[in-house]
Amino acid sequence: MKNQFRGIIPPMITPLVDNNSLDIKGLESIIEHIISGGVHGLFILGTTGEGTNLSYELRYDLIQRVCIQVSKRIPVLVGITDTSLTESIKMAEKAAKYGAEAVVSSPPFYFKLSQSELISYFNDLANRLPLPLFLYNMPEHTKVYFESDTVREIAKNDRVIGLKDSSGNSVYFQTLVHAMKDNLDFSLFVGPDIITAETVLMGGHGGVNGGANMFPKLYVDLYEAAITRDFNRLVPIQEKIRQLWYSIYYVSNSSSCHLTGIKCALSLMGICNDFVASPFRKLNEKNKATVKRYLEALDYKSLM
Amino acid sequence: MKNQFRGIIPPMITPLVDNNSLDIKGLESIIEHIISGGVHGLFILGTTGEGTNLSYELRYDLIQRVCIQVSKRIPVLVGITDTSLTESIKMAEKAAKYGAEAVVSSPPFYFKLSQSELISYFNDLANRLPLPLFLYNMPEHTKVYFESDTVREIAKNDRVIGLKDSSGNSVYFQTLVHAMKDNLDFSLFVGPDIITAETVLMGGHGGVNGGANMFPKLYVDLYEAAITRDFNRLVPIQEKIRQLWYSIYYVSNSSSCHLTGIKCALSLMGICNDFVASPFRKLNEKNKATVKRYLEALDYKSLM
Amino acid sequence: MKNQFRGIIPPMITPLVDNNSLDIKGLESIIEHIISGGVHGLFILGTTGEGTNLSYELRYDLIQRVCIQVSKRIPVLVGITDTSLTESIKMAEKAAKYGAEAVVSSPPFYFKLSQSELISYFNDLANRLPLPLFLYNMPEHTKVYFESDTVREIAKNDRVIGLKDSSGNSVYFQTLVHAMKDNLDFSLFVGPDIITAETVLMGGHGGVNGGANMFPKLYVDLYEAAITRDFNRLVPIQEKIRQLWYSIYYVSNSSSCHLTGIKCALSLMGICNDFVASPFRKLNEKNKATVKRYLEALDYKSLM
Amino acid sequence: MKNQFRGIIPPMITPLVDNNSLDIKGLESIIEHIISGGVHGLFILGTTGEGTNLSYELRYDLIQRVCIQVSKRIPVLVGITDTSLTESIKMAEKAAKYGAEAVVSSPPFYFKLSQSELISYFNDLANRLPLPLFLYNMPEHTKVYFESDTVREIAKNDRVIGLKDSSGNSVYFQTLVHAMKDNLDFSLFVGPDIITAETVLMGGHGGVNGGANMFPKLYVDLYEAAITRDFNRLVPIQEKIRQLWYSIYYVSNSSSCHLTGIKCALSLMGICNDFVASPFRKLNEKNKATVKRYLEALDYKSLM
Repeated sequence: MKNQFRGIIPPMITPLVDNNSLDIKGLESIIEHIISGGVHGLFILGTTGEGTNLSYELRYDLIQRVCIQVSKRIPVLVGITDTSLTESIKMAEKAAKYGAEAVVSSPPFYFKLSQSELISYFNDLANRLPLPLFLYNMPEHTKVYFESDTVREIAKNDRVIGLKDSSGNSVYFQTLVHAMKDNLDFSLFVGPDIITAETVLMGGHGGVNGGANMFPKLYVDLYEAAITRDFNRLVPIQEKIRQLWYSIYYVSNSSSCHLTGIKCALSLMGICNDFVASPFRKLNEKNKATVKRYLEALDYKSLM
Repeated sequence: MKNQFRGIIPPMITPLVDNNSLDIKGLESIIEHIISGGVHGLFILGTTGEGTNLSYELRYDLIQRVCIQVSKRIPVLVGITDTSLTESIKMAEKAAKYGAEAVVSSPPFYFKLSQSELISYFNDLANRLPLPLFLYNMPEHTKVYFESDTVREIAKNDRVIGLKDSSGNSVYFQTLVHAMKDNLDFSLFVGPDIITAETVLMGGHGGVNGGANMFPKLYVDLYEAAITRDFNRLVPIQEKIRQLWYSIYYVSNSSSCHLTGIKCALSLMGICNDFVASPFRKLNEKNKATVKRYLEALDYKSLM
Repeated sequence: MKNQFRGIIPPMITPLVDNNSLDIKGLESIIEHIISGGVHGLFILGTTGEGTNLSYELRYDLIQRVCIQVSKRIPVLVGITDTSLTESIKMAEKAAKYGAEAVVSSPPFYFKLSQSELISYFNDLANRLPLPLFLYNMPEHTKVYFESDTVREIAKNDRVIGLKDSSGNSVYFQTLVHAMKDNLDFSLFVGPDIITAETVLMGGHGGVNGGANMFPKLYVDLYEAAITRDFNRLVPIQEKIRQLWYSIYYVSNSSSCHLTGIKCALSLMGICNDFVASPFRKLNEKNKATVKRYLEALDYKSLM
Repeated sequence: MKNQFRGIIPPMITPLVDNNSLDIKGLESIIEHIISGGVHGLFILGTTGEGTNLSYELRYDLIQRVCIQVSKRIPVLVGITDTSLTESIKMAEKAAKYGAEAVVSSPPFYFKLSQSELISYFNDLANRLPLPLFLYNMPEHTKVYFESDTVREIAKNDRVIGLKDSSGNSVYFQTLVHAMKDNLDFSLFVGPDIITAETVLMGGHGGVNGGANMFPKLYVDLYEAAITRDFNRLVPIQEKIRQLWYSIYYVSNSSSCHLTGIKCALSLMGICNDFVASPFRKLNEKNKATVKRYLEALDYKSLM
């Protein structure tokens, strides 16, 4: 029997004080902050977690610390995306050792893979992993989609339990819902906060939403309103999320703008440090003031 | 006061017997077929209408014939997308002369335009048009999105009454809903059939759906179920539409696959010729047999 | 026997006073200016000629005026790129009627075509044309390359006499040289000025270079130095062309930057008007001053 | 004073017996084979070296073994491209420890970086490295070009000694030649074999050519013929290289086709194993037979 995931699984940012040092106190704070919002899991070392930008030692340390502190209160999922199969497996072994529930992987992303290469790679990977595997569709960074026939093929392997789609492409997501309609154990999540509601209304199982780092309860409410089709509750929450998306996530022009916006907001909220690992940089003072204004416009204390 | 469009506005295919000749009888049939489904408008000379692939003489002839036959029973919208401003305006003048309600335009699509070029181009265009203008976001073909700030800027011009988004990108669509939230007269439609339901549930105004050439009533039902949030009705319709999308639209590998699938189905349904203009070709006999099987799997007579 | 083209064939800009009016006097000036440089042909209505952006009436008028004035002193090639086969053929018929030597066509560019669609389209087209055909590879605007096997296939048709490659991709160009090595009548030209020398050194037949609007003799010299492998002559010319490329062609950020830079320079040189057709705009006064400085840095009078 | 590199620096394939084991004997063979061709350096752990696909342990082991065996006969350059600055530096420290001459790095490639992010990243990196740095432009895999102004800016740092361009875009390469014309110590190399000749003729300094794994002497001859502008010698060599490119490099459809073609040929030549690391697979028996035929058509023994 497969693990079924449903609901909100925040892609946790990684609190840092510099490129090679965790912000230990901030890490404790953000974990407690997120769990207190009633979320359904925690995903570390994804795109928002700067997974690929961190050293392996720091990643191993993070896995251990997060698993210890979460202490099975909610499932922990660990990003193992890598260009090297061997390093992916090694990361998954750390995740298993420390008590994570599942791992998450995008395709190797230096070369662009074909669909048949995706199938053989993920079969290989799933068979060697000590934990169940979530696929992570992230074409902006990996240059390739998991086409729906490919997902169906890979999902024949029982070790593969779901897919998180960060493409923002709802046509694609609906074809996945169709392709997997006879495999109800397979979980389909989306990344972008702003489309979690509509995908849950139309067959999706939840959101891996960066904004849930800041406002976990807001996203849990969004999910519950959507899954119960309670539009009176849903509409104003969705408006808040649109406003948040359109403001905090686009303060800089960098491809790191979501990440740096979230880290800046968390720092302003007193939760953790806003340091961002190389090759990116945290928001400057002027942008930080903008984020502050946006938080106030959102009446952010009411959302916590 | 702006014209408000809501509901299902099929992007009509153009029935042809060869590159330069309309299928006159087929044209009458499809117009009556579509209107009988209860649709809210008719859009000719769009992407599904092969607008850019047809000679201007044929386009002018089509506008006249369609307007005469529709005879104001529903509004007619005319695609005027062109690389030349002068030719776009000329097409719009024909549309106005024969009684169309509005025109629809993508950006000029040979060169890739910047956002500021989009703003100045569409201002120029709107001011010279005899009819109100719908923007048509089609980045696959035009290489550029109308960013949401650009739409807000262009929409300051009262002649611009809405936008049809065929990107399939629901993150983008939600940012449009947010950007236009104080301009309730501005209509936001989507192209891809398979996401009409979710966008209508989350703030959109309707669909310009190719499948409504075949099954206009099905799409009107979809829209009504979505706008009234009647999920008991909506869920099985959406399943039909996913099935249709995943079958009839992908019989060939060509970028014309939606179009050739629809024309083939219409021909099998006895409505019009399946000829497709250069540079494309209609489906071959083997593919035609596949479409026949798909139609039967859909129990298509129940959908008409 | 095929027409063999060799040397420099400038892609002439189209002198305009507004969107719908030729700059008649400027047109005469630029034709004489270009011919006086000793070029080997003249290509009108290409990308630099704003072909797709102009009304058909204006294009027909231009073909007639150019052919009359050139009066067979050098061959005239006419761009017939269109999204509609019928309009392409109609344009070619005008070209033949007024005395042009050949026509030039990119793929239809609204939809992205497959390689097999390119083959059948260009076979169709070539067979219906009254003049020989040059292929025009312009993937930035048409979304597709003519792959080398496709070129070999299309070139089996005797009506197809050459290819102009504007991709800037020299790996591609060398595969074309290889693919066509047994078809010595087939002409292979490049678009970008800055790589004309190296392609001529390594098997190409000439350049369709925008800069030859300004300095036709400089480009003829470049070609001659390259074809005779005279590096003492070639190196300083190539340095001038690098300097020109790096300055005049990038004064604005628009995708029209080459075009607007050239028209601005021609206007400063007293040759013709710098009006640019919609959707673009000519350079503003500040940018015009920059072009002026660049021309002086090039010691442009020495190049005329 | 900067290190000046000139000539042919083969991007060595990594001989493997499985994902985690070097083909030790094959490694010795290929190093001696390459050095015997008279090349000017050896680049390991690049794209052709499957750098990103290998475990770090294996990479460290490879660096040590290569440096020991080469034993300063020619300079060794080590690829340190990574998504994590810390891991890049660690790799560079291994390279320095074992006696390599320089390191080579593409941009971090999970996120797409902006030009200003490239500048600050490579400054950071260069300042922390124990060895001089070559930039590696590989937009197909990293999604971004080093624009020529960016290169000029980064090259102000004395630790940055050159750039290898694998884009195939000769327009870009010529703009680099122009941008760096006053910095004659800065080395400009190209990756694609088929354009090494023309870039050397027009200002480049050499080639990092995959084919030199198989036929090092052929590429050294190519370089010498180009640098001395000896066309009698150059033309037939370039024809061989076009033939090789068009055959051995495109036996499969995968993005690994160059790599798998080269490894297959080397195995047929008795030099090393053809195993290819995950996510790719070596050519199958049918494709292997094709490579054999291609080698014979090239009269490959005459090239060794």
